[in-house]
Amino acid sequence: MTATERERDAMRHALDLALRGPRGINPQVGAVILSPAGDVLAEGWHRGAGTAHAEVDALSKLAPGAARGATAVVTLEPCNHHGRTGPCAVALIEAGVARVAFAVADPNTISSGGAERLRAAGVSVEEGLLENDGEALLSSWLEVQRLGRPHVTVKWAQSLDGRIAASDGSSKWITGAAAREDVHRRRARADAIVAGIGTVLADDPALTARAADGSLLDRQPTPVVLGAREIPADAAVRRHPRPVLQYDGHSLFDVLRELRSRGVQRVFVEGGPTIASAFVREGLADEVLAYVAPVLLGGDHLAIGDIGVGTIGDARRHILASVERLGDDLLIVATPRKTSEPHEGDA
Amino acid sequence: MTATERERDAMRHALDLALRGPRGINPQVGAVILSPAGDVLAEGWHRGAGTAHAEVDALSKLAPGAARGATAVVTLEPCNHHGRTGPCAVALIEAGVARVAFAVADPNTISSGGAERLRAAGVSVEEGLLENDGEALLSSWLEVQRLGRPHVTVKWAQSLDGRIAASDGSSKWITGAAAREDVHRRRARADAIVAGIGTVLADDPALTARAADGSLLDRQPTPVVLGAREIPADAAVRRHPRPVLQYDGHSLFDVLRELRSRGVQRVFVEGGPTIASAFVREGLADEVLAYVAPVLLGGDHLAIGDIGVGTIGDARRHILASVERLGDDLLIVATPRKTSEPHEGDA
Repeated sequence: MTATERERDAMRHALDLALRGPRGINPQVGAVILSPAGDVLAEGWHRGAGTAHAEVDALSKLAPGAARGATAVVTLEPCNHHGRTGPCAVALIEAGVARVAFAVADPNTISSGGAERLRAAGVSVEEGLLENDGEALLSSWLEVQRLGRPHVTVKWAQSLDGRIAASDGSSKWITGAAAREDVHRRRARADAIVAGIGTVLADDPALTARAADGSLLDRQPTPVVLGAREIPADAAVRRHPRPVLQYDGHSLFDVLRELRSRGVQRVFVEGGPTIASAFVREGLADEVLAYVAPVLLGGDHLAIGDIGVGTIGDARRHILASVERLGDDLLIVATPRKTSEPHEGDA
Repeated sequence: MTATERERDAMRHALDLALRGPRGINPQVGAVILSPAGDVLAEGWHRGAGTAHAEVDALSKLAPGAARGATAVVTLEPCNHHGRTGPCAVALIEAGVARVAFAVADPNTISSGGAERLRAAGVSVEEGLLENDGEALLSSWLEVQRLGRPHVTVKWAQSLDGRIAASDGSSKWITGAAAREDVHRRRARADAIVAGIGTVLADDPALTARAADGSLLDRQPTPVVLGAREIPADAAVRRHPRPVLQYDGHSLFDVLRELRSRGVQRVFVEGGPTIASAFVREGLADEVLAYVAPVLLGGDHLAIGDIGVGTIGDARRHILASVERLGDDLLIVATPRKTSEPHEGDA
């Protein structure tokens, strides 16, 4: 049996419901319960770690027995795992649900197997209904599961010759307004923004996501400062709408894991050349954003310092994901090439 | 009177004739003499400095009096200057030509004024016939007249972070095959290719324009080495199809003027960071070609060194003329922004 038009409609609605939940440690999930005739009986969504899963949230709105013979439409495969809540697969079986349709399979080995358990109990299971939409909804969360840590974007603005300032340290502005606005839009899409204490002390950045007129955008990343030196009491970052986090930063991976435990899925690193180089050196830059101004500066203020490359064979090779003109400047987005991928220069 | 279709046809032919002459100190010029009825009586072209101009070359093929009442169609305004040959305007008047049509006005104050002189003698003059085609033909020569020196392209290949080699000096290869082929095509379009003696001693470049299979392309730039140290007898550049020129390079402008006097219109500079930085520093880089590989290297081997920029206000700002993907790499072409042009960062 393939999905009915009513089930597809219900999945579209479940995807919308999922967005009502927060982006965080747990995935955003939505669920709709349909009667055997295809009418909506109940809906639910997950409100974050420690609260009911979406299917259970929906079932909880029904009288006992009301879900018998019903179809549950869920954006993520029902879990098969005793966590803070019981396995959703069991809850659905016990409620007498006859059929389950879901969009995205659960990537976690610990909680997966729900589909199998449902089938074993005689429930009809439809996998991958509107799967692309489901994956788009969960892309950040799915990537965190894959990486075992948040996704990291390392951003810098440079002259064509790789400098971030002139010899005397002046740098306002290398790139233009369009590039700077693009940075703020991307900050707003991140869950955390990371800078080094050196940059905080030298430049006093606000680490907020702002519109062109300077007003705060709706979504603000959590400011994270790396380094042991104290953040001054009057630092701009202390007036950030979200409380600032500080780590000594000796292990970037530990910092990322700690941020993950706080529900951070996407990290935006723009903390100066030392921090940027450290993330690149440790292989923790999943995406590089270089805003390149058609300017030549020369001198010693480089965007990237030591990244541990001694010889050309160890070069940190990337793939050009996109190249975009922003006003007078270029935005080059690059992702690390996997070492198994050949490149043109090999011959 | 506007140009007739016969005159337009004759101009197209004259543009083709012009190409038979060499590109050099003098412009490439073609000429066609039409009878009053519009038939081709004679054609000519300029064979280079010291030889007859195109109009005179065409007239020389006619019996005395045969050009009386004729129309001369010439790609460049007939000169009004006693050089090694007499003024062409006078030769046309004395031959009894009744009408002259030309494509491009003579930009040289010393030789211009031919149109005026012809009109003063009662000759009908049509200016700007197929002017765009004429300017395209003469673009390099016209630019040399404007600049007072050859046009200079400064090229380098760099990592995204502005390096030309890894810490140990290894650099083969940063960019891929497509970028390297593009370089050779552009070398072939230049009249001279410039490298520093340091690069010649360190890398022993051939400074030839080659196809992907290593064979020489038809057109070869003259190799030019800057610096006082001796070029070794067994250097690859000594086997270049054109004899190598060497200058101490203390004054780049003098070198360019000297090259101009040898008929060089387009110079391709790819001689390493010292030479590239020197051309940029002295404002002698009319075009910058940066082949950018999506690679990060870090370290001390920079594409551009000191270019005399102390503070951000003195940054060498450019305009992105084009951005092109070449295989895995990017070719960024930039031209210097005139100081009077505002840029986005000003606010």
